Amino acid sequence: MTISADHPRYRSLCVREKLAQAMLDGIVAPEGLSAHGRGEAFDYLLGEVTIPSAKKAEQCAAAMFHMAKHPVISVNGNTAVLAAPEIAALQKATGALVEVGLFHRTEERIRKITDLLSAAGAVVTQGEAERLLPLSHDRAFCLRGGIYEADLVLVPLEDGDRAQALVGLGKKVITIDLNPLSRTSQTATLPIIDEVTRALPEITAYASEMTEDDALAILAVMPEQIWFLQAALDTISQRLSTIL
Amino acid sequence: MTISADHPRYRSLCVREKLAQAMLDGIVAPEGLSAHGRGEAFDYLLGEVTIPSAKKAEQCAAAMFHMAKHPVISVNGNTAVLAAPEIAALQKATGALVEVGLFHRTEERIRKITDLLSAAGAVVTQGEAERLLPLSHDRAFCLRGGIYEADLVLVPLEDGDRAQALVGLGKKVITIDLNPLSRTSQTATLPIIDEVTRALPEITAYASEMTEDDALAILAVMPEQIWFLQAALDTISQRLSTIL
Repeated sequence: MTISADHPRYRSLCVREKLAQAMLDGIVAPEGLSAHGRGEAFDYLLGEVTIPSAKKAEQCAAAMFHMAKHPVISVNGNTAVLAAPEIAALQKATGALVEVGLFHRTEERIRKITDLLSAAGAVVTQGEAERLLPLSHDRAFCLRGGIYEADLVLVPLEDGDRAQALVGLGKKVITIDLNPLSRTSQTATLPIIDEVTRALPEITAYASEMTEDDALAILAVMPEQIWFLQAALDTISQRLSTIL
Repeated sequence: MTISADHPRYRSLCVREKLAQAMLDGIVAPEGLSAHGRGEAFDYLLGEVTIPSAKKAEQCAAAMFHMAKHPVISVNGNTAVLAAPEIAALQKATGALVEVGLFHRTEERIRKITDLLSAAGAVVTQGEAERLLPLSHDRAFCLRGGIYEADLVLVPLEDGDRAQALVGLGKKVITIDLNPLSRTSQTATLPIIDEVTRALPEITAYASEMTEDDALAILAVMPEQIWFLQAALDTISQRLSTIL
């Protein structure tokens, strides 16, 4: 379909079409499209901007990356399609490993996502995935030298079970998810309630100019997880009361 | 994928998988999956129940069907996949025509949706669609003896442009859309803010036992469109303030 540039939701329709094409190309699972739709709804409620509490979360995320010994960015199909260059930039700024982690795992999809990330300049950790996470189905798979040994994992657009399993293994987990009520957000050590292409460059910008002293100072006063969730819900509530 | 029945979102995952399969079968467009995701997000915020103001809207819808001279139910891919039996039942209770109306129109998809509806017991109006609605692309197409001549059109899960075009042609438009902020809901004569498989049986139940006196009494005190939208937003606001 050709989308008219004068459509009031032009940008949003283009992103949807990009994801739909990626699904036809076997890069994202069909379920990735409905997941994107849920995110869109919450972004609409948040005003499609990075709210102040999310910006603070992005600064905290940069500090956590700075202090981590073995940080890993877990990338799924939606994230790769929407934000491969942003992932590559964050990797450069933090030195984190990039690992492909999928809910609907097939070797072909892993390869396609790896190609997409590589083309955008990311260095993707590869190897023999093992069944190392306490999850049913193929979601249990990850790399021993990657997510399994990580002390910090950033999981943009993740499913709740997987985020929970990573927290259960003692890892610090940063999520990027527009839904403050999702199990993903509620499970995370640090939930970033923001759209992925807005959030990643913010983390990268903070990480690029952060010293260890900065990082320690930020982490010393980092709010609890619930604060970030409540701030997002409050924003939505306030908008709803004035929107009509 | 096999979905574990103990997953906290089991029902929701099954519906998503059903739509994903329908997309692979060419019945729904890929964009239908992200549209479903947006609906899911709002349903979550509403508590996944028919709120009292929606129930009232469903009663008003039944009254509008009762008084209409030429009511038509416009059905797209998502509605057919999610609620073909409920559409057939509503048709029996109201005598409305059922017409397939698509955003991403192809003759093949029209045929598949028609088959799905017919198998569920609906009688689908067929014929040569003409470019009769003031819309770009293939969304302009409808049947002269169907939607074009209708005085009342029920458009579950419709796009905003199309709902607006129908209102512009002087028709009464009832929408079923979980998003009280969508252009669809904001445009409708009567916006039903409810999930389609909950809403349709309610309208059918009201329609089945309604007399003309009932219908006139209901329509005499029917709230304005904005009341239904505000009631849904208030429900969401209240839930957000108590949910964490």
